Amino acid sequence: MREITEHDLGDIARGAAILGTGGGGDPYIGRLLASSAVRTHGSVPLVPLSEVPDDAVVLPVAMMGAPTVMVEKLPSAEQVGLAARTLAGYLGKELTHIACAEAGGVNSLIPVVAAAQLGLPLVDADGMGRAFPELQMVLPTLYGIRATPMSIADEKGNRGVLDTVDNRWAERLARSATIDMGCSAMISNYAMSGGQARESLVPGTLSLCAELGALVRAARAAHEDPVAKVVSRLGGRRLFSGKVVDVARRTVTGFARGEARLSGMDGDTGAELVLRFQNEHLVAERDGVVEASVPDLICTLERESGEAVTTEGLRYGQRVTVIAAPADPRWHTPEGIALAGPRYFGYDIDPIGVAG
Amino acid sequence: MREITEHDLGDIARGAAILGTGGGGDPYIGRLLASSAVRTHGSVPLVPLSEVPDDAVVLPVAMMGAPTVMVEKLPSAEQVGLAARTLAGYLGKELTHIACAEAGGVNSLIPVVAAAQLGLPLVDADGMGRAFPELQMVLPTLYGIRATPMSIADEKGNRGVLDTVDNRWAERLARSATIDMGCSAMISNYAMSGGQARESLVPGTLSLCAELGALVRAARAAHEDPVAKVVSRLGGRRLFSGKVVDVARRTVTGFARGEARLSGMDGDTGAELVLRFQNEHLVAERDGVVEASVPDLICTLERESGEAVTTEGLRYGQRVTVIAAPADPRWHTPEGIALAGPRYFGYDIDPIGVAG
Repeated sequence: MREITEHDLGDIARGAAILGTGGGGDPYIGRLLASSAVRTHGSVPLVPLSEVPDDAVVLPVAMMGAPTVMVEKLPSAEQVGLAARTLAGYLGKELTHIACAEAGGVNSLIPVVAAAQLGLPLVDADGMGRAFPELQMVLPTLYGIRATPMSIADEKGNRGVLDTVDNRWAERLARSATIDMGCSAMISNYAMSGGQARESLVPGTLSLCAELGALVRAARAAHEDPVAKVVSRLGGRRLFSGKVVDVARRTVTGFARGEARLSGMDGDTGAELVLRFQNEHLVAERDGVVEASVPDLICTLERESGEAVTTEGLRYGQRVTVIAAPADPRWHTPEGIALAGPRYFGYDIDPIGVAG
Repeated sequence: MREITEHDLGDIARGAAILGTGGGGDPYIGRLLASSAVRTHGSVPLVPLSEVPDDAVVLPVAMMGAPTVMVEKLPSAEQVGLAARTLAGYLGKELTHIACAEAGGVNSLIPVVAAAQLGLPLVDADGMGRAFPELQMVLPTLYGIRATPMSIADEKGNRGVLDTVDNRWAERLARSATIDMGCSAMISNYAMSGGQARESLVPGTLSLCAELGALVRAARAAHEDPVAKVVSRLGGRRLFSGKVVDVARRTVTGFARGEARLSGMDGDTGAELVLRFQNEHLVAERDGVVEASVPDLICTLERESGEAVTTEGLRYGQRVTVIAAPADPRWHTPEGIALAGPRYFGYDIDPIGVAG
């Protein structure tokens, strides 16, 4: 895939929502926004990470906030361009490439909107290889690239720039602004050179999203098991199949926080799985024992269709299969685990990897 | 006064605290900061408002937040320069003059610090002729000058720029950032041309502060009544003399809000005065009847010394005289009253002027 056309957007959104591990936004909304942008501005060149020149100026763009809110308060197309232009203006730099901060149903598609609007190529990569809830939880952090300067913009036209002494302050100030802006906002940060991008991003994310989306679609058409295809492609494992019997979800401090309880089906009959999330799934506990945790991916897929279910989309009665898949190996270094491991989120356990 | 030397700072701070109507910051802190800056960088040229050229680029600088906090969390000198430089950078303009957003023990002196640091002249004027608690409450608002772009900086080195669709959004986003920054922050906004400054600012504020401060000092030295001198100079009236018997003060939504009860002394024996404030005094009620209100000035002065008592400095047992003084006439226009009259602050009354 050397360019993203309207035709590709369905598969990309579908696959991105799987990698979004419950967060990263609703793929339906991501696809709507990107379709409109690509129809207006034309298809978007996709550049392999290895081909981004050293002196490129790469700017990620993303939505920040509670996905529960994003479903009702749609981002505006102008907002995407505004965030990127505001940061570029503050930096006094000419952008050359747009990138994805994370994989997710909205956050893999928003950069498509930005690239189409600004007439720039998109880098086939992202900053996590999945989605995570807080600003600093990107691999570039491990390479010393700071979360600020960052821009933030809302759909009303309000915008701002933050330039902080550390990432903790960036997260704090940006989160408050996001809450004021109605719990969802467009941001642009981690501006980096092409050299920094090649070193710190996860290569091939958009291609992987498209491939996963196509796999699910094809398996369904062939009456095969789409979940099995996803598990196999990601090198993951099936954790649990069951019916959602309870969802407790609150929008607090700008996040969708909560837990879902699943009553087992198929081979899991009689067992219970609890998923705990902060936008993204953080831990999966089977009968009180943690079976998988961040930084690895915990994804909820509809049992029949293989479509990802986001944490804001979880509801009583859904039949889902929960899978785990390995995160980029850099997330398993001590620095990666300190940044986004279970202890950061308040669970006093070592990470439980896909190997179990 | 054509320049501000270290010698002038005591009188300016003393007089500014009177015009601060209980807010605008503690004059002791304002004087400390300005003394240090003037000692390091030399005295500051003071330019009459009428002499500011049309094409000047005038930048006000101020502290934003709860004065109760400012007393313990001192602003840093670097923070002042950081706010001004950040806004100038965002605007891409070369500053020519610094100005005061409001009169107050800190907020009339912070611009002295900025001017000294940046080697720029200070305009002898301010944006209110008093202090008010919210961002948009400046006379430039009546002339269509917007509260953003604005910069905000804290003493840790965090900084940001806000560029909003209206002043309500500016106040909201800046207030949240101020709260995150510890309830006090340095801001710069209402950047304006010399022509706009001449039209919209209150002329002569720093000279008036110095004059008021000198009057109080001289009266005390001559064993005369300093309060009477202040009332006479401001064309105001004495409202009440009494002892503070109760102060209820909370730091909420980034403001010092509350009320003080005074039990009458001298000619007011047997009566009670209640002062209600949000950083600044908003209304004065004598035995349940409002005797004075915003937009006019309500000032609390120590009964003997004539020194202003800020709302965060009010405490049980103080003997104070409360005076009222007329605000700049533009505050009494319908637009001025809508911006900072009693109804804006939740009091369902017409403004009670100094005439009673």
